[in-house]
Amino acid sequence: MKFNNRNVFISEKAIIGKNVKIGDNTTIYDNVIILDNTIISNDCIIGEPIYTYYHDIENYENPKTIIGSNSIIRSHCIIYCGCEIGNGFSTGHRVTIREYTKFGLMCRVGTVSDIQGYVTFGNYCWLHSNVHIGQKSTIGNFVFIYPYVVFTNDPTPPSEICLGPTIGDYSQIAVFSVLLPGVKVGKHCLVGAGSIVGKDVGDYQLVIGSPAIFKKDVRQIKDRITGKSYYPWPLHFDRGMPWSKIGFEEWEKFAEL
Amino acid sequence: MKFNNRNVFISEKAIIGKNVKIGDNTTIYDNVIILDNTIISNDCIIGEPIYTYYHDIENYENPKTIIGSNSIIRSHCIIYCGCEIGNGFSTGHRVTIREYTKFGLMCRVGTVSDIQGYVTFGNYCWLHSNVHIGQKSTIGNFVFIYPYVVFTNDPTPPSEICLGPTIGDYSQIAVFSVLLPGVKVGKHCLVGAGSIVGKDVGDYQLVIGSPAIFKKDVRQIKDRITGKSYYPWPLHFDRGMPWSKIGFEEWEKFAEL
Amino acid sequence: MKFNNRNVFISEKAIIGKNVKIGDNTTIYDNVIILDNTIISNDCIIGEPIYTYYHDIENYENPKTIIGSNSIIRSHCIIYCGCEIGNGFSTGHRVTIREYTKFGLMCRVGTVSDIQGYVTFGNYCWLHSNVHIGQKSTIGNFVFIYPYVVFTNDPTPPSEICLGPTIGDYSQIAVFSVLLPGVKVGKHCLVGAGSIVGKDVGDYQLVIGSPAIFKKDVRQIKDRITGKSYYPWPLHFDRGMPWSKIGFEEWEKFAEL
Repeated sequence: MKFNNRNVFISEKAIIGKNVKIGDNTTIYDNVIILDNTIISNDCIIGEPIYTYYHDIENYENPKTIIGSNSIIRSHCIIYCGCEIGNGFSTGHRVTIREYTKFGLMCRVGTVSDIQGYVTFGNYCWLHSNVHIGQKSTIGNFVFIYPYVVFTNDPTPPSEICLGPTIGDYSQIAVFSVLLPGVKVGKHCLVGAGSIVGKDVGDYQLVIGSPAIFKKDVRQIKDRITGKSYYPWPLHFDRGMPWSKIGFEEWEKFAEL
Repeated sequence: MKFNNRNVFISEKAIIGKNVKIGDNTTIYDNVIILDNTIISNDCIIGEPIYTYYHDIENYENPKTIIGSNSIIRSHCIIYCGCEIGNGFSTGHRVTIREYTKFGLMCRVGTVSDIQGYVTFGNYCWLHSNVHIGQKSTIGNFVFIYPYVVFTNDPTPPSEICLGPTIGDYSQIAVFSVLLPGVKVGKHCLVGAGSIVGKDVGDYQLVIGSPAIFKKDVRQIKDRITGKSYYPWPLHFDRGMPWSKIGFEEWEKFAEL
Repeated sequence: MKFNNRNVFISEKAIIGKNVKIGDNTTIYDNVIILDNTIISNDCIIGEPIYTYYHDIENYENPKTIIGSNSIIRSHCIIYCGCEIGNGFSTGHRVTIREYTKFGLMCRVGTVSDIQGYVTFGNYCWLHSNVHIGQKSTIGNFVFIYPYVVFTNDPTPPSEICLGPTIGDYSQIAVFSVLLPGVKVGKHCLVGAGSIVGKDVGDYQLVIGSPAIFKKDVRQIKDRITGKSYYPWPLHFDRGMPWSKIGFEEWEKFAEL
């Protein structure tokens, strides 16, 4: 059904691992390395060249791009050259990942999301659909970002300053929130829906609003159904997480983040 | 001009009706049924397989997908297997419709919209560009959803709970509004721009704000130009609607929703 | 690497200038004119026909489309017939530009942006990612529009009225702002993040909020780092601008906007 080798272009300078599947109409450019057991679905572009290519096509050397093993890139994604993407990566459709972006292990990026380049993600980050991450953002481990979240980076637009936000481990950013340039969000935070975050957020804080202000410690948020406290969420959610068999508290004793 | 049969893939297990046009670079997977007089434009994927395909390509059986008659799917759309789409369907470009979504008759979905799967729409729903509908949402008939509206479904993210919103007939959701998990919006409602709706909304209510609160009965909203009441809108708008020749009040007497 | 002439379709009725590059899988329809030194990257559609095409394929005549010289259209863009796009145009990926849109010189449009047609832009407009411009909007020169901004046009949805917003020269619209139908924004304005603009905005105003209200004259905004006033921004930013060598004040004496 899929993978008919129809209209596929793979550069002779690309390295394709064992048991890799490449979908129809997909293009793999120079110096792309795809590790074992990974699926690149149809209509994708991997190793898209940066702007300098168009100025000197003859002498351009495409920076190295690495796609980790056991990953699945769904159709119509564009991943630029210079990216380093860890094992177990997974995307929706139409994801754009610009140059020199790094993802750790087991990350997920939803449909239509747009990573603007020079962004660093830790391990197990889950980005939902239609997330926009500006250049030079830094995101920790186990960070959840929900639809239509925007990370900005220019404090006095338009300017030449580029200050990306920084997000700590286990934090979550809810739908339609904006992180303003250079803002730092701590660990285990929750940014409520529709917030505009202009000031740094300490660990375990729930902030919400425009401008976002401190509401309560996340450990005081009660589950609407059970009435019990739900956060820190790793105590209650383990699907796809490394602590799924032993529990977060036990896992955390030995974790190296 | 279009429809040159260039680089088209149609599964032998697909059923293509009379007078159907399939655009260049389009892929039609197994067990897709396209009814008569429908246009699938270029660069589309119809019947995209679900995740289990990648785990067992040999034994995977693609669920049946139906695209109704007299429909037009514009370029770069992706419609998953298991969807049932009624006659007279129309899309913009780059629409993603995930598995097991049902659309009634005469629905429209705008460019870049993202329907996350297991969603049910009635008849004559019009979704504008860049709408995001989370899984397990339920939408009535004659519902208008404007750009950058998000339907969410997880009350304590991240969790395994999935509670989609429910929207009644003739209701409208304006730009940048968020419907929180499990919320119910009645009939003939209007959710104002930029609202975050966390509580149920009764019939004929205008709600707005974050959190959205009741402002007035929609029948009290005056048209800025005429000064007369404009809602319920079916009394004043009939383009493409089934009451376009006889008027809404006459039509409603015999309508079966 | 790129430009292998793989699966390219160029209408015999298209006119392709000197030193133009057309990417793989790209389609150029009837009556498209591409001026010299322009790059159309892969997977693009230029001259997409309007709706009437599907009703009378035999007799349809595709309106003329012009893409200016020295432009770069990145992959997966769709530009409809009837558009006139000035020299030095540049796009990100997956941009949709509907019919009869006009861009002046040196404009830029970011990834996933959606221009709904019948829109007019002046020169040097920079639209960031994921901008949505409704039909019949009018945008001046040197206008910056940031991600997830929406221009609306229907004052009593759904209706047959279409009143696009108007934006003056040098103005900026920050992330997640909505311009309501028919609103007029003056010159050198700044609309803050997350605003809903329902009333006209005078020259040099900073407005913010929902509804957006006047905060201060932009000339009173201090740079967070230098403490000096930063606006009007052309006094401090010149990358890619026509005053980059002589300064804005000198350039302005002779400029004809």
